[in-house]
Amino acid sequence: MRVDGVWHRSVWVDPIDGWSVHIFDQTKLPWAVEILRLTEVAQVAHAIRAMQVRGAPLIGAVAAYGLALAVRADASAEAMERDAALLAATRPTAINLNWATGRMLTRLRNTPAAERALVAYAEAALIADEDVAQCEAIGRHGAALIEVAAAQAPGRAVNVLTHCNAGWLATVDWGTALAPIYRAHDQGIEMHVWVDETRPRNQGAALTAWELGAHGVKHTVVADNAGGYLMQHGQVDLAIVGADRVARTGDVANKIGTYLKALAAHDNAVPFWVAMPSSTIDWTVGDGVAEIPIEARDAAEVTDVTGRTADGAIATVRVAAAGSPAANPAFDVTPARLVSGLITERGRCAASTAELARLFPDQA
Amino acid sequence: MRVDGVWHRSVWVDPIDGWSVHIFDQTKLPWAVEILRLTEVAQVAHAIRAMQVRGAPLIGAVAAYGLALAVRADASAEAMERDAALLAATRPTAINLNWATGRMLTRLRNTPAAERALVAYAEAALIADEDVAQCEAIGRHGAALIEVAAAQAPGRAVNVLTHCNAGWLATVDWGTALAPIYRAHDQGIEMHVWVDETRPRNQGAALTAWELGAHGVKHTVVADNAGGYLMQHGQVDLAIVGADRVARTGDVANKIGTYLKALAAHDNAVPFWVAMPSSTIDWTVGDGVAEIPIEARDAAEVTDVTGRTADGAIATVRVAAAGSPAANPAFDVTPARLVSGLITERGRCAASTAELARLFPDQA
Repeated sequence: MRVDGVWHRSVWVDPIDGWSVHIFDQTKLPWAVEILRLTEVAQVAHAIRAMQVRGAPLIGAVAAYGLALAVRADASAEAMERDAALLAATRPTAINLNWATGRMLTRLRNTPAAERALVAYAEAALIADEDVAQCEAIGRHGAALIEVAAAQAPGRAVNVLTHCNAGWLATVDWGTALAPIYRAHDQGIEMHVWVDETRPRNQGAALTAWELGAHGVKHTVVADNAGGYLMQHGQVDLAIVGADRVARTGDVANKIGTYLKALAAHDNAVPFWVAMPSSTIDWTVGDGVAEIPIEARDAAEVTDVTGRTADGAIATVRVAAAGSPAANPAFDVTPARLVSGLITERGRCAASTAELARLFPDQA
Repeated sequence: MRVDGVWHRSVWVDPIDGWSVHIFDQTKLPWAVEILRLTEVAQVAHAIRAMQVRGAPLIGAVAAYGLALAVRADASAEAMERDAALLAATRPTAINLNWATGRMLTRLRNTPAAERALVAYAEAALIADEDVAQCEAIGRHGAALIEVAAAQAPGRAVNVLTHCNAGWLATVDWGTALAPIYRAHDQGIEMHVWVDETRPRNQGAALTAWELGAHGVKHTVVADNAGGYLMQHGQVDLAIVGADRVARTGDVANKIGTYLKALAAHDNAVPFWVAMPSSTIDWTVGDGVAEIPIEARDAAEVTDVTGRTADGAIATVRVAAAGSPAANPAFDVTPARLVSGLITERGRCAASTAELARLFPDQA
C-alpha cells in the first residue's frame, strides 16, 4: 500500500541491482520509517528472529527471498540445505516459515546448481505474488460488505472497527482484515476505522494506525476497552478482524481481546467478520476453545510499555506496580456463534463446518 | 488497609500535632510511596486539582479536612465561605466535593467563630468515619459471596476479577469493589485477584496492584483484553467492580471496558457483581445507556503512557503512530441484565428498580 504517496510492498527486490532484498524495519515503526537492504542470508535470519519482519505470510515470503540470497552466494546442495534449516529455525512456531522454505527446497533440489539462483528468485517472487493475490481477493470479497454498509449510511463515513494488525505489514501487500478497508477506500468509499490499540503489544496503535495513516485512510485509535461503548452508541457499522487459526467449525483464534469485541458486536447487532486466507484453517480442530493451544507470552509485555519520548528517544517504562506479577495469554478463541462470517480468498461464507467445507471441498 | 504491615487510611490527621492533614501522593504511586503533610487550604485545593487524591469519596473527605484547616487559620464567615468555594471548584464534576463542602458549611454557619475549628475537625472526621463504615459494610456483604465461592472451590484460591481502582485509595478505607476482597483475605480465605490494567489510565496496573500487594493480597495484572479468555477457561470465580453512577433500574456506569467484562461474565456464567454506596444511585435515571452522559477525556491518555524507566525516572512515551488521532470515552454503561447483583452498605440486591426500591425505600 502507499507510504508518502508511493505504493510499497512489505518486501521487494531492489529494482536497480536486481538481487538485494528490501524490507521495512518493523521494530522501528511507527517511530521511524527505516528500509533495510538485506544482502546475505544471515541478515535475513536476523531480521526474522529480531521481528524486523513479522506476520506469518510476510515471514514466509522473506524467508523465501533469504534462500534466494543464499543460493546466489553458494549454490551447492550442502549450503542450500544448511541455509534453509537456518531460516526455518528462526521462529520455530511460525508455520508459514516451514512451508515457504520447504516449497523452495522442493523446487531447488531438482534444479541444476548453475540455475538455482535464477529459479530461487522466481519461486520467491511467486510466493510473494500468490500472497498478494490472496489478500487482494480477500479485499475484493470484503469490500462488498463495506459497499452494502456505505449504501445504508449515505452522507457519512462507514465506521469499521478492527483489532491488532492484520494489514499489509503482516503480509506482502493489502493485508487480511485491512484489505477490504483499503479496497473500499481506493474505490472512493468514505471510510473511518476505529483502531483498537491492542494491548499488550500495541500493534493497533503502532502498526495499524501507521499503515492506515500512510495510505491516507481516516482512523482513530481507541483503548481496547472502548469498543463496547462505541457499538452501544451506533458508532460501528461493522467489525473486521484477522485470524491466527480457524477451526473447521468456524471458531476463530485471534489476538487476545477479539472475543470481547465479538461479544459486544453480537450484543449490539453489529456484523462481526473474520478475514483470512484458507491456509489459516486447521481442519483437525473442531472445538476451538477447548482444542487450540494459547501461547502464554512474557509478562513484561504487560508490565512494561515501549514508546517514543518527547525528545525522540525510544524508551521502555514500567506501568504496573513494582513486584506485581502479570499474565499474558496472547490469543483467545471466539466461538463461531459470534462470527457473522468469514472472508477468504474464495469468497465469504458462514463460520460453520458445512459452509467451510462447501467453499473448500478440496481441503476439507 | 495495610502498607508495610501498618494500617493506613488514605487521609488522616497527624496524631502528634493533632491538626495537620496527611495524604498519599497518588500521582507518585505506584512508583514511590510519598506522604504529603498539608497545613493550608491552598495545599488541599492543589492536592485535589492535581489528583494527588482522587476517587469521589476520598475527595469529599479531603475537602472537608481542607475546610477544617481553613477555619483553623481564619474562622471568619467571609474566609470560610471563600475557602469552601475554592475547594468546591477544584474538580467541578465530582459530586462528593460539593456534598462534603456543603455539609461542612451547613454545620459551621451555625457555629460561633471561636468554636469553628474544633467543630470542623469533628465534622470532617465524621464524614471520613461514615465513609469507612459504609465501605466496611460493603465489604461484609460482599465477603459473604466470596465465602460461598470458597466453599465451592476447596483447596484453591478464590479467583476474583476486578477492573480499574475501586479500592481504599479511592475512598477513606476498604474501598468498594476491593472491600469484600480485603475482608475475605483478612478472614483467612485464600484469595487471588485478576487485576485488569485498565487502559488508558492504568489505574488497575498502578493503583489496584499496588494496594493489593501492600496489603498482602495475591494478584496478577492482565491486559484488559485477557478477561474473556480467563473466564472461558474457568479461571474467574466471580467479578466485582465499582460504579460511578447506577441508574434506578440497575444499569451501571463504570470505567470504560466494564461492559465488555460483564458480557464475557454473562457468556460464561461467571457472577458479575457491582459494589457501591447508595450515594452512587441516580434515582432520576431510568435507561443508563441512553441517559448517563459519558465524559470524553484527553486523547493523550490513549496515545501516551507514563511509567518508570529502568533508571528510576518517571517518563511519558507515545505509543500510537505519530499524527494518528485518538478518542477517549472514559466510562461505559453495563445494562442491568448483565449484572448479577449490587453490593451496597445495606446489603445485596438484584440490579432492578423493584429491588433497589425495596432496599432503599427512603431514597427511591
